[in-house]
Amino acid sequence: MIEEEAGQEDVRQDNVCLNLKAGEAASGDQHDLCSKDGQKHMDYILTYSTKKLFSDLHPSLSLKEKTCCLSCCQPCARDQSLRKYHGGTQKQSLRSQEEEKVLCREEFEDNLKKMGLHLEKDESNRISGVGFLKIHAPWDILCREAEFLKLKMPTKEFYQATPQHKMRKLNAFFKRITAPLLPNVGDTETEDIKKVCYPFSREKLHLSHSTYYSTVCMQCRTLTVNLFLQVLYREWASYSNFYKYQPISLIRKYFGEKIGLYFAWLGLYTQMLIFAAIVGVLVFLYGCITVDDDIPSMEICDKRNNITMCPLCDKSCSYWKLTMACGTARASHLFDSTATVLFSIFMALWAAMFMESWKRRQMRLNYMWDLTNFEEEEVSNEYFAALHAKAAKLTWRDRMPAYMTFIFLMTFAILFGVIIYRVTTQASLQMSSMPSIRANVRLTVKSTAVIINVVVILILDEVYSKIARWLTILEVPKTDKSFEQRLILKTFILKFLNAFSPIFYIAFIRGKTANTASSYGVLFKQSFSPQCAHTGCLMELCIQLSITMLGKQLIQNNLFEIGIPKLKKLIRRIKTKRAPVQEEQDDKDLKRYEADFFLEPFVSLNPEYMEMIIQFGFVTLFVASFPLAPLFALLNNVIEIRLDAKKFVAELRRPVAARAKDIGIWYNLLRGISKAAIIVNAFVIAFTSDFIPRLVYQYGYSPDGTMHGFINHTLSYFNVSHFQAETHPLQPLHLGYKVEVCRYKDYRMAPWSFNPYDISKVYWAILAGRLAFVIIFQNVVMLLSDFVDWVIPDIPKEIITRIYEEKMQMVEFFMREEHSLYSMPMLDNQDENRPTPQLRRS
Amino acid sequence: MIEEEAGQEDVRQDNVCLNLKAGEAASGDQHDLCSKDGQKHMDYILTYSTKKLFSDLHPSLSLKEKTCCLSCCQPCARDQSLRKYHGGTQKQSLRSQEEEKVLCREEFEDNLKKMGLHLEKDESNRISGVGFLKIHAPWDILCREAEFLKLKMPTKEFYQATPQHKMRKLNAFFKRITAPLLPNVGDTETEDIKKVCYPFSREKLHLSHSTYYSTVCMQCRTLTVNLFLQVLYREWASYSNFYKYQPISLIRKYFGEKIGLYFAWLGLYTQMLIFAAIVGVLVFLYGCITVDDDIPSMEICDKRNNITMCPLCDKSCSYWKLTMACGTARASHLFDSTATVLFSIFMALWAAMFMESWKRRQMRLNYMWDLTNFEEEEVSNEYFAALHAKAAKLTWRDRMPAYMTFIFLMTFAILFGVIIYRVTTQASLQMSSMPSIRANVRLTVKSTAVIINVVVILILDEVYSKIARWLTILEVPKTDKSFEQRLILKTFILKFLNAFSPIFYIAFIRGKTANTASSYGVLFKQSFSPQCAHTGCLMELCIQLSITMLGKQLIQNNLFEIGIPKLKKLIRRIKTKRAPVQEEQDDKDLKRYEADFFLEPFVSLNPEYMEMIIQFGFVTLFVASFPLAPLFALLNNVIEIRLDAKKFVAELRRPVAARAKDIGIWYNLLRGISKAAIIVNAFVIAFTSDFIPRLVYQYGYSPDGTMHGFINHTLSYFNVSHFQAETHPLQPLHLGYKVEVCRYKDYRMAPWSFNPYDISKVYWAILAGRLAFVIIFQNVVMLLSDFVDWVIPDIPKEIITRIYEEKMQMVEFFMREEHSLYSMPMLDNQDENRPTPQLRRS
Repeated sequence: MIEEEAGQEDVRQDNVCLNLKAGEAASGDQHDLCSKDGQKHMDYILTYSTKKLFSDLHPSLSLKEKTCCLSCCQPCARDQSLRKYHGGTQKQSLRSQEEEKVLCREEFEDNLKKMGLHLEKDESNRISGVGFLKIHAPWDILCREAEFLKLKMPTKEFYQATPQHKMRKLNAFFKRITAPLLPNVGDTETEDIKKVCYPFSREKLHLSHSTYYSTVCMQCRTLTVNLFLQVLYREWASYSNFYKYQPISLIRKYFGEKIGLYFAWLGLYTQMLIFAAIVGVLVFLYGCITVDDDIPSMEICDKRNNITMCPLCDKSCSYWKLTMACGTARASHLFDSTATVLFSIFMALWAAMFMESWKRRQMRLNYMWDLTNFEEEEVSNEYFAALHAKAAKLTWRDRMPAYMTFIFLMTFAILFGVIIYRVTTQASLQMSSMPSIRANVRLTVKSTAVIINVVVILILDEVYSKIARWLTILEVPKTDKSFEQRLILKTFILKFLNAFSPIFYIAFIRGKTANTASSYGVLFKQSFSPQCAHTGCLMELCIQLSITMLGKQLIQNNLFEIGIPKLKKLIRRIKTKRAPVQEEQDDKDLKRYEADFFLEPFVSLNPEYMEMIIQFGFVTLFVASFPLAPLFALLNNVIEIRLDAKKFVAELRRPVAARAKDIGIWYNLLRGISKAAIIVNAFVIAFTSDFIPRLVYQYGYSPDGTMHGFINHTLSYFNVSHFQAETHPLQPLHLGYKVEVCRYKDYRMAPWSFNPYDISKVYWAILAGRLAFVIIFQNVVMLLSDFVDWVIPDIPKEIITRIYEEKMQMVEFFMREEHSLYSMPMLDNQDENRPTPQLRRS
Repeated sequence: MIEEEAGQEDVRQDNVCLNLKAGEAASGDQHDLCSKDGQKHMDYILTYSTKKLFSDLHPSLSLKEKTCCLSCCQPCARDQSLRKYHGGTQKQSLRSQEEEKVLCREEFEDNLKKMGLHLEKDESNRISGVGFLKIHAPWDILCREAEFLKLKMPTKEFYQATPQHKMRKLNAFFKRITAPLLPNVGDTETEDIKKVCYPFSREKLHLSHSTYYSTVCMQCRTLTVNLFLQVLYREWASYSNFYKYQPISLIRKYFGEKIGLYFAWLGLYTQMLIFAAIVGVLVFLYGCITVDDDIPSMEICDKRNNITMCPLCDKSCSYWKLTMACGTARASHLFDSTATVLFSIFMALWAAMFMESWKRRQMRLNYMWDLTNFEEEEVSNEYFAALHAKAAKLTWRDRMPAYMTFIFLMTFAILFGVIIYRVTTQASLQMSSMPSIRANVRLTVKSTAVIINVVVILILDEVYSKIARWLTILEVPKTDKSFEQRLILKTFILKFLNAFSPIFYIAFIRGKTANTASSYGVLFKQSFSPQCAHTGCLMELCIQLSITMLGKQLIQNNLFEIGIPKLKKLIRRIKTKRAPVQEEQDDKDLKRYEADFFLEPFVSLNPEYMEMIIQFGFVTLFVASFPLAPLFALLNNVIEIRLDAKKFVAELRRPVAARAKDIGIWYNLLRGISKAAIIVNAFVIAFTSDFIPRLVYQYGYSPDGTMHGFINHTLSYFNVSHFQAETHPLQPLHLGYKVEVCRYKDYRMAPWSFNPYDISKVYWAILAGRLAFVIIFQNVVMLLSDFVDWVIPDIPKEIITRIYEEKMQMVEFFMREEHSLYSMPMLDNQDENRPTPQLRRS
C-alpha cells in the first residue's frame, strides 16, 4: 500500500498531479477538483454509499482505508469491527450493518483528519445514493511521507550522458530511421539528459529543482492531466498508431510505474515477436518450397507403390490405400521439415534473448524512472490478516482442504481437457472413417471438432479463474503480495492445463499407445485405438494448436475484453436507476468525478498478463510443430496493445499509481515456460515428428543413402488371417480385391519371421536415436540459453556508467553546496584545471 | 575501492578501530599508533621504500593511492605519470624511476592532505630502507564520507524481535543443545536485540546512539582491537574448537564483511557436509553389507562357472579366468549398489538445499550487519584503465590473442590431463598384464600411477593460476570487479579441467571405445585398447577420484597453505638483511607496525574460495561413483577452517575491511557445478555403472526375474580362429588348455549367428534404457531441485518481518523526534492505548 502512495508522490515530482480519479479525455470543469474556497486542490476522491450502493463500491473504499491505516501507522481504534464488516460476516442484520458502516466511515474520516489530511464532503451530487469525499493532502504531509519513502528528488543539477564516440554515428542513423516510429508526444525529456536525483529530505530542500514542490497552480495541474490524457488518447490508444512505439514515459507518468512496466513489457514482447514471426514464416515457406522434393511424401502419393494398409479401427473400418494419405503427408511436410529442428533451437534462444532483453529494458526504465534504489517491501497486509481472525492460527492442516481441492481440480482440468478432445474427435473419426468420406473432408470434420473443443476451453477458463480466487481466499494468505502470488500461480496452472492438456495428449500419448503398446490382430486388445494419420501426429497437433490459439485470441480479446466492460458500465447505470434516455444530457452536466463514477474500476493487471503468458506458451512450447505461432501472436498483440490502451484511457477509472521495479512473478512464469519449452520441443521433434526415423533410415538402413524406400521401411506386415474374432473389417472387399497381407506403421517382425509381430531391432535403434536426440537437444539448447544469459549483461553497460557518473556528479554537487555551508578542510572543487567527470571518461 | 573505505567506516560504527594494519595478538606499545603529540589516533599506515625496496611494497601502496584518488574524486594532477610508473614501463632508466617515485609520493601525500587527512612520517624506524606514513582521518572527513556512502547509523532505539509463540519452546530447546557448540566470545549482542539503524546524515546526528561517533578514546580503541584478536585467536584459530560454531560477528567486526562472509559460507558448507557425509557412509556401509548377497559378483567369483575370457590386449595378454576379477567385482559393489542411485538424487537435492540455505544465511547476515540497503557499485577502475593507456581503444580484435591463448590452454589442459593419465596407467597396465602379477597387485600398481598423476596435477594447478592472471592482464579489463571476475573464471576453468579431465576420461571415454567402436579379432584395429575391469570402469573412477581428492587436499592444505607463507616471511626478513640471530631480540623492540611489516600482505580470498569450489566439484560431480567424497571433504574442511583462521589471525597483515553483500561470482560457479552434477551423475549411473544393464536383464531377459545368469548375459562369444594375424596371444596355453571360444564383455551376436559379431538387439535395448534413464534422471532431479529452490524462500520469513518491524519502529521514532522539532498536524504517537507494533503482530 505504501507503494501506491509512493506512486502518487513520485509522479507529483514530475510536475503532474496524479491524484485524480478522472479518466476521460473530455475536459470537464476544472474547478470540480478544487475545494469550495477554490484554494485547495483535491488529490483523491473517495465514494461511499449514502444508502445501499455501498457494497458495490467497497473495493475501492476499503483499499483506501487500508492505504491510510498502513502508510501512516495509525490503526483505527475501532478497526477490528470495521474489518469484520468488510470480511462480510453475514450474521449481522442488514440494519446494524448499515449503522456500523456509518460509524466506521466516521471513524475512518477522523483518522484521516488526524493524519493531517483535509477533507471535504460532497453529498449534493447528481448521482443518488452516492457520496463523494474529497481529500487534500497538504504540503507538510507530503514532505514527511516522501522522506519516509525515500522518494528521489530532482536537484538543480542536470546530468548529460556522454555519447560514446564510436556509436554516435550509428546512433544518429538509427534515430533517423526510427523517427517515424516514435509517438508524437512532444516529449522534451530526452534519454540523454536527466536531472540528478537525491532521496528526498526536508533539510536538503534548498537543493531541489526550483520549479518543483513550490508554485504549482491548481488550474494548470488539472489542465496538464487533461493534456496528458488527450495525448495518450491520440498517440497511444488508437489503432492507426499500431506501427509506432508506445509513449512509455507518458504512460508511466499518468498511470504509474506498474502499469508502465506492463506496457513496456508488452511492447518489447511484440517487438521481439517480429523476428520470431519472420523466421517462422521463412520456415513455413521452406516447407512449401521443398514439398515437391520430399521423397517420403512422393512415395506416399505415388500410385505405383500400391500399398494396402490395414484398417485404422476394428470392424467398421476397412483396408485402405496409402495414397489416400497423400494430402496429409504433403501438408505435414510444411510443418515437419529439417528447418523445424533449427527453428526450435532458434525459438529457445529467442526466448532466452527475450528474457535478457527484458531484464535490460527493465533496468533502463528503472534508471530513467529513478527506481534504482527503490526496494519493494513485502508489507504485511495486516488488514487482510485481521479480516480473517483465524488466519494467524491456520496451520497446514487447516489449509489441507484448499490444497486438496486444488490438486483435484488440476487432475480434473487435465482429464476434462482430454475427454472433451476425445469425445469431439471420436465423433468426427467415426464419421470420417466411413469409406465414402474423402481424406480432405476428414480435415474439415476434425477442425469442427477442435472448434467445439476451444469453446469449451474458453468457458472453463472463466470458471477456473473464479475457482482459483475462491481457493486462494480459503487459504488465507497473510499478505497482499502473497495473496496475489498464490492467486496468479493457481490461475496460471489451471488455465495452462486447460489450454494445453489436449495438446499434450495429441503430441505424446495419442498414437503412441497404438504404435507400441497394442498392435493389430493378435495384439489388438483395444476396440478403439485413436491413430494419427500416417505421417505422425504432427498434422493433428498443428490443427489443434492453431485453432486453439486463434480461437482463444479472437474470442477472449474481442468478446471478453471489449464486450464485458461495456456491459458492466450499462449495468452500473441501470443500478443507479437513471433512464438511458436522459443519459447524454446528464453526462454533460455531471462533474468530472461524477461521470467517472460510472466507469469500471480498475482491478488488476493480472488478466492481461495471464493472457500474454498463455500466448507465450503457444509461441514457445510447441513451436516445433507450428512455426506460424509467432506470426499469429504478433498480429494479435499489435491489436492487443491498442485495445488495452483504449481500455485504460477511456473505459476504466484511473488506477491508483503504484511503484514497481519489475513484473514480479510473471517473469518467473515466463522463465518456467521457456525452460519447459526446451524439453517439450525436444520430445515433439523426437517422438511426434518423423525426424529421427528418417535420419536413422538415411544413415543406417538406406541402401543408397537417400530417403528412397523410407515409407516401405516404416511399414510392417500383417497377415489378415491373424485377425482376432470380431475384429475383422466388415467390408473386406472395399478396395475391390481380396487382401492377404496388409501393412501398418510400426517396427515389428514380419508374420513369417522367427518371432512374428515381435518388436524389431530397428525399433530399439530408433528409440535409442530418439532418446539420444532428446538428451543432446535439451542439453545443447539449455547450454546455449545459459550462454546467452551469461553473455548479455543484465544491466546495460551504458546504464552502469550513467548511474556511476550521475552519482559522482551528485557527490560533487553536494560537496560544492556543502562548501558554502560548512567550513571544513576540503579540496578545491572549483579548480579550473580540473577535468570534469564526463571528459575524464572519454 | 569505495567499498574498502566503506568497510572501515562501517566497522568504526561498531565501536572498533579497524584501521590498523596490525595482525598480531601480542600486545605492543599502545602509543605506537598515536601521533607524536599523543592526541590523534592513527587510522592507517602506508609503507614505502626509502631506498630500493620500493618494488617489493608497491602492491599495497598503489592500492592505497587508488583508494584515495577514487573515493575523494580528486585526481592527482600528475597521476598520469604516476600511473605510468606502476604499469612498469621498462624503458625509463632506474635512476629516473627512483626520482619519479619520490615525486609521485610527494604529490600523493599532498593530495591526501588536501582531502583533509592528517599525515605523520616515521622514517626513524628500525627497519632500514622502509618509511612509514601514518594517516589520521579527522571526524569531519569521516562524517562526510559516511554520508556519501549512506552508512547505517545506530539510533538510540532498540528493536527487539518478537519471538514467535509456537517456536519459542523449540528454540529454547535448540539453544540449550547447541550451547556447548557456541564459541565463548562473550558476545553481548544477541540475535534478538538490534539497534535501529538509519543512513548516516549529519543533520540527524542528534538521533544517534550517544556512545558512538563521539568519545572514543584512543587507548581503549587499541585495547579493544587487541582484545578482539586475542579472543579470535583463542576461540576461533585453534584446532581444539573444531566442533564449535565460528564467532562470525566477531570475525566480521575485525576483518570486515567480505572475509566474514567467506567464513560464514565455509562454516555453512562444512555444516551441510555433515549430513552428506553421514548418508554417504551409510550408502557405503549398505554396499559392504550386501556384498555377499550380490548375485553378479557371486557368479563372477563362482569357480564352477569356469568362464574363459578373451585377452585384454593384443599379443602380450592371454586368456584369463573370470574368477580373477572376483576381488574387483566385490569391491565395485561397494560403490555400485542400488543405493548409489538414490544417493545421487540425494546429493543433487543436497546441493540445491545448500544453495538455498546459503541464500537465507546470507540474507540473515545482511540484516544483522545492516547491509540490506547497501548496493555494491561497479566502480569503474579508472586507475587501471589509465594504467594501460590503450585500454579504451582495445577492441575485440586486440584481445583476440588472449582469448585464443586461453582456448588453446583449455585444450591443452584437457589433453595433458588425459595424456598424463594414460602414460601412467599404460605403464601400470603393461606391468599388471603380465600373467605373473595377481589382480590385487594390479590395484597397487594402478594407485601408484594415480599418485604420480596427482602430483603432476598439483604442479600444473600453480602454473595455470599464474597463466590465468597473465592472460587477464592481457585482456585489460576496465574495472576491478571485471578484472576479478575474469581472473576467477579463467582460473576456475583451467583448474577444473586440470582436476577433472582424467576423471571424465575414465568415466565416459575409456572402455566405451573398446566396447562399442572396436571389438576383438576381426574388429580389432587398435593395438592398445585400454579396458576397465569386468564390472565397468566404476572402480577405477573411484580410485582416481579418491586419490586426486585426498592428494589435492593434503598437499595443497599442508604444504602450500602453511609452508609457503612461512617461507615468504623468511625471504622478506632476509631481504631486509637482518641476521636471523638478532631476530628474537629485535622483535620485542619493534613497534607494532614495524613487526607487522614482516607479515605477508593479504592478497585476496580467491585461492581459498577456489580450493573449496573444486572440492565442491568432487563432492557433487561424481558422487554416484564415490559416496565417501563428502566424508573426505568434511574432514578436510574441519581442519581448513582453523587453518585459514590461524593464517588470517597470525600469518597475514590485517586485510583492509571490505563491504560485501554476497559471495559474488562464486555463487554462480557453485550453481553451475550443481547443475552440471545432475547430468554428470545421470551419465555415470547410466553408462559407467552396470545399473541399467542389470535392470534391463532383470525385467526383460531374466528367465526367473532374478539376477541369476546376468554375467553370462553380458558376455558375448568369440571364436579364437577369427583372431587377425599378429593379434593372437603369445601364450595361448597360459590357462593350461586350448581355448576355442572365449568370452568378452559386449552385446554382440555369436560367431555362429546370421550376422556374426554384429551388434545385438539387446545392445540397442540397453542403450535405449540408458538414454531413457538419463532423460528421466536429469529432468526429475532438475525439477526436484527447482522445487526445493521454490519451496524454500530466499529470505527467511522472520527476517522479512523483522526488517518491516524495524522500519516501522524507525518511522515512529522519527515521527516522535520530529514532533518535538517541527510543528505540524500529526497524529499523537504517545497515545497510550495504542498497541506497539510488536504486540499488534502477535
